[in-house]
Amino acid sequence: MDELVCSEFKLGRRFLGCLPHGKDLITSIENFCTASNIRMATFSVVGAVSSATIGVYDQKQHVYVTFTENTAMEIVNCIGNVSLTDKTPVIQSHIVLADENGKITGGHLFSETVLFVGEIDLQEMIGKPLERVYDNKTGLMLWNLENPGGS
Amino acid sequence: MDELVCSEFKLGRRFLGCLPHGKDLITSIENFCTASNIRMATFSVVGAVSSATIGVYDQKQHVYVTFTENTAMEIVNCIGNVSLTDKTPVIQSHIVLADENGKITGGHLFSETVLFVGEIDLQEMIGKPLERVYDNKTGLMLWNLENPGGS
Amino acid sequence: MDELVCSEFKLGRRFLGCLPHGKDLITSIENFCTASNIRMATFSVVGAVSSATIGVYDQKQHVYVTFTENTAMEIVNCIGNVSLTDKTPVIQSHIVLADENGKITGGHLFSETVLFVGEIDLQEMIGKPLERVYDNKTGLMLWNLENPGGS
Repeated sequence: MDELVCSEFKLGRRFLGCLPHGKDLITSIENFCTASNIRMATFSVVGAVSSATIGVYDQKQHVYVTFTENTAMEIVNCIGNVSLTDKTPVIQSHIVLADENGKITGGHLFSETVLFVGEIDLQEMIGKPLERVYDNKTGLMLWNLENPGGS
Repeated sequence: MDELVCSEFKLGRRFLGCLPHGKDLITSIENFCTASNIRMATFSVVGAVSSATIGVYDQKQHVYVTFTENTAMEIVNCIGNVSLTDKTPVIQSHIVLADENGKITGGHLFSETVLFVGEIDLQEMIGKPLERVYDNKTGLMLWNLENPGGS
Repeated sequence: MDELVCSEFKLGRRFLGCLPHGKDLITSIENFCTASNIRMATFSVVGAVSSATIGVYDQKQHVYVTFTENTAMEIVNCIGNVSLTDKTPVIQSHIVLADENGKITGGHLFSETVLFVGEIDLQEMIGKPLERVYDNKTGLMLWNLENPGGS
């Protein structure tokens, strides 16, 4: 693939709401998507966490190096998407966090990341949902855009 | 509240435009919303500031610790939303800034944050607007999702 | 200009897709826009790069100070827009990156920034496209909102 390859979607439902205090960020969104029958979406979150697990991908060894910060931090940015893996809605998201001194960290979002407070803006996408499949070149689960939705 | 609680909205007007040089970031957006009768929206901004006031929430003492940077910085990210407090459109936003060495800081956006230049992408939301009310558990003004819009 | 000045747009096509491994981030998006006849859009990207060129604007001397990081990093945030310069779709975008230790850098996105992997969410805007023209006060190419689209 030498160029940007896309699928086109219609806009579905648009949700704004609050994420639950004391709960895991990823699990909360995935549970909502399952309960609301959302298979494809993009979202953003602002808020704060009481702890966070984030990672950066080692592009040579094909593993995520993760670390956990057990401290109160602002979610200064968090964007991501929802698509299907094995027919189940799963989140891919990156997060940027600020500690009490304004020092910033960030990376790929993992569980467990515990919410203090959070506001989400989620846009459902209507169309043949993209499915994640293993990509040999990168070692990551990427969208199967030649055959979106699989069969 | 143990799970994500949302309201659903229809998409209203979509605006792209320029923020005013030398003016406060928050005030500029709130004034536009008031003048345009926007009560609920989400937005993002990229641009640059000549100074910024940002804060991080002290989750134990329930106060924002704020600090001001009197230096030219890029707005590398700024996302937020507009909703109602006491019937007036107010902004909740987080910002990420880069100084001339690429050093990053960020947090909850406060006034006064003075624009050098800025481009905004704002999506109006149509529906019963969410109102912010005091939340005892966190000490923050959160959306009243059990009774959105009040009455 | 003392206040926020906007144009209103209708929502066009919405695309989600993958950016090409080993290619330049900006060029990939601009080529897609040209090929798809997109003249105005906003977008976000998450992913990873193998190298990046970013800059911060010197607000006094009116030049971008740029620097290149030849290292694998996560794209923890990247938002931007597409509009016209000399009738051609061009990108303005800011990026936030995390290295393997979670250390963050960021700024205005330049070429060459080489993709390892990337997922884009792009919203086309329908209406009179904004054109960038030179602004004396800031030294930047800003949207001509008094006369959007030119003639």
